[in-house]
Amino acid sequence: MSINRAASTTSVDVPRGLAGVVVTDTRLGDVRGLEGFYHYRQYSAVELAQTRGFEDVWHLLVHGELPDAAQRAAFAARTARLRRLPDEVRTALPAIAAATRLSGPLAGLRTALSLLGAAAGFRPVYDIDAERRLADTLTVTAAVPTLLTALYRLGQGLDPVEPREDLGYAANYLYMLTGSEPDVRRARAIEQYLISTIDHGFNASTFTARVIASTGADVAACLVGAVGALSGPLHGGAPSRALDTLDAIGTPERIDPWIRERVLAGDRIMGFGHPVYRTEDPRSRMLRGIAQSFGGPLVDFAVEVERQVEAILAELKPGRELHTNVEFYAGVVMELCGLPREMFTPTFAAARVVGWSANILEQSEDSKIIRPAARYVGPGAPAAVPQMV
Amino acid sequence: MSINRAASTTSVDVPRGLAGVVVTDTRLGDVRGLEGFYHYRQYSAVELAQTRGFEDVWHLLVHGELPDAAQRAAFAARTARLRRLPDEVRTALPAIAAATRLSGPLAGLRTALSLLGAAAGFRPVYDIDAERRLADTLTVTAAVPTLLTALYRLGQGLDPVEPREDLGYAANYLYMLTGSEPDVRRARAIEQYLISTIDHGFNASTFTARVIASTGADVAACLVGAVGALSGPLHGGAPSRALDTLDAIGTPERIDPWIRERVLAGDRIMGFGHPVYRTEDPRSRMLRGIAQSFGGPLVDFAVEVERQVEAILAELKPGRELHTNVEFYAGVVMELCGLPREMFTPTFAAARVVGWSANILEQSEDSKIIRPAARYVGPGAPAAVPQMV
Repeated sequence: MSINRAASTTSVDVPRGLAGVVVTDTRLGDVRGLEGFYHYRQYSAVELAQTRGFEDVWHLLVHGELPDAAQRAAFAARTARLRRLPDEVRTALPAIAAATRLSGPLAGLRTALSLLGAAAGFRPVYDIDAERRLADTLTVTAAVPTLLTALYRLGQGLDPVEPREDLGYAANYLYMLTGSEPDVRRARAIEQYLISTIDHGFNASTFTARVIASTGADVAACLVGAVGALSGPLHGGAPSRALDTLDAIGTPERIDPWIRERVLAGDRIMGFGHPVYRTEDPRSRMLRGIAQSFGGPLVDFAVEVERQVEAILAELKPGRELHTNVEFYAGVVMELCGLPREMFTPTFAAARVVGWSANILEQSEDSKIIRPAARYVGPGAPAAVPQMV
Repeated sequence: MSINRAASTTSVDVPRGLAGVVVTDTRLGDVRGLEGFYHYRQYSAVELAQTRGFEDVWHLLVHGELPDAAQRAAFAARTARLRRLPDEVRTALPAIAAATRLSGPLAGLRTALSLLGAAAGFRPVYDIDAERRLADTLTVTAAVPTLLTALYRLGQGLDPVEPREDLGYAANYLYMLTGSEPDVRRARAIEQYLISTIDHGFNASTFTARVIASTGADVAACLVGAVGALSGPLHGGAPSRALDTLDAIGTPERIDPWIRERVLAGDRIMGFGHPVYRTEDPRSRMLRGIAQSFGGPLVDFAVEVERQVEAILAELKPGRELHTNVEFYAGVVMELCGLPREMFTPTFAAARVVGWSANILEQSEDSKIIRPAARYVGPGAPAAVPQMV
């Protein structure tokens, strides 16, 4: 639209799917697949999950630094107040819950977030200042647990539970889901899971959020696109699938034949393998530890499945570095904490929305639209338009 | 998630914003900026707009070929039936219209499309066959005019007008907007505008739709993201801005000083310049012709502004090829046809949704996720997480 833009007359060939193509510089973090390490800003994400609360890490991502005590209190209070939904959104939720019965909770979240951003009067990120952009991301992020749990409960024929401001992000999420205050251990386990999955490199939903932000669209437009991308089976995956696998195997003596059959058939085994990590997924290691701190037959069984899968893969596909991915123990931890399986991926979204937000804020500092090219490979043009028949 | 994916260990440097980077092959069309020519499949888009109806070109994009008489009748009947909204969506529209009062019609469309896809039970594109994917795109596209006009009328305190199946896509759109059947000339002018803007290379909203589709997400997820990208000021622009410029200039004798002042100040002049075209925009030329077939003072004034802007730019910025872009005469044509200015960009969306749909269908034939990379440029990691204070 500007009269100052240069034409792109050259084309650049790159790997399929833009794999490895650097779209942007970022100060938000990185994933080092060969080292089995990932970080938010300059800090190990796993160490943050082990030592900090969700609000601390949220503050780190969107403000660029960990809060001190006063900042922590102010940030927690500010975001807790935003948990309550505007009336226009609250009254529309029963209709959204009814209409999204077939398509599931991410379609409901997508719709409700879109409505929330509109109701809050969000404006294009290029038309507002950095403080207002930040405020918009906080408005949406703080509301995600409220929206998810309200839609879930409405779908179950239950009344939504109003948020509490005296609980942390994770504890309040579990509280709104069940209607009762979670015990400290479960709240902390979910908080650590949430922190560990806030961000993870330039995945497809994060990229989607940045492409939309690069047009200058409002924060809700960016986040709604990101939720859409997350809902894709190639991206968001489903921590529930790994649990479904555990269910399908059933008993310890069935592990070996069940896994062998799938590996020999060339089938994918849910919960194993990752496009980036060539070592153990650091999230997986942390979540295994959390699961083991709960203990019990499900945990023992999961650990035994992991052990046997790795042994069988080493035997049948030697040289392949294949380990559990984040889905495997994330599913176990969420099951132990009482989350219904259909809420596993939405719970992931409740964390990742912080990462998307930080990426939107960073992208909106850049005035360059993200607009690649395609190569026409159809029949030669122009062909004469045939007469109408 | 697959155990078969290769790690991307190398990184590739490319121009900022992925300019000129070829993401995919396409058979849908191309824009040749240096020639001032663009095409859908193998046919000139302008020639299609001049000789064909909207449904013909829609069929061309999503089926790959122009319809014969029987195909045309079947396609028109099929899509006309889809104009009527499911009850779950219809009943939610007043709430959406009320909540999106501040954020405007694209935020309303984004929300309503999200709801429609969910209510229709859309499933991931990778989980359904090509026929079902096509059906999902038709369901959404056919409903866009119904949603847009219903939300607009509700916002004006008017009842929505039910769609008619006996009118073409463009005529029915104008009918639902105003409640009365449009004259043939206006319906045809809008139809030609809509055809001319169905697709236009790999713009940011089209790319967004394809990124989301590459995750396997459902058709509504892809389209909601595309609407979000279109709402960005750097992308969708606003055909109304060019008209606002005409209003601001006011009278013919003010053209010269008004334009000179802006050009000397380095300001952008709305309605002029395009990132790709270095010749006249072929859409602009066609729309000017349509506008001139209506005639009248607005058209005469627009033509005079165009003439003087080009002359002043040639004088003050010699060597720059600067011409009107699609916004300029699109705004004039929509004004002549009685569309309210706030509906100009939504009307654009009612055409572009066909292009997005064709791109989603094409992308879903490819199983490779679009997932580029970012380069971490922050402080060295890992740094020790500081003690909590």
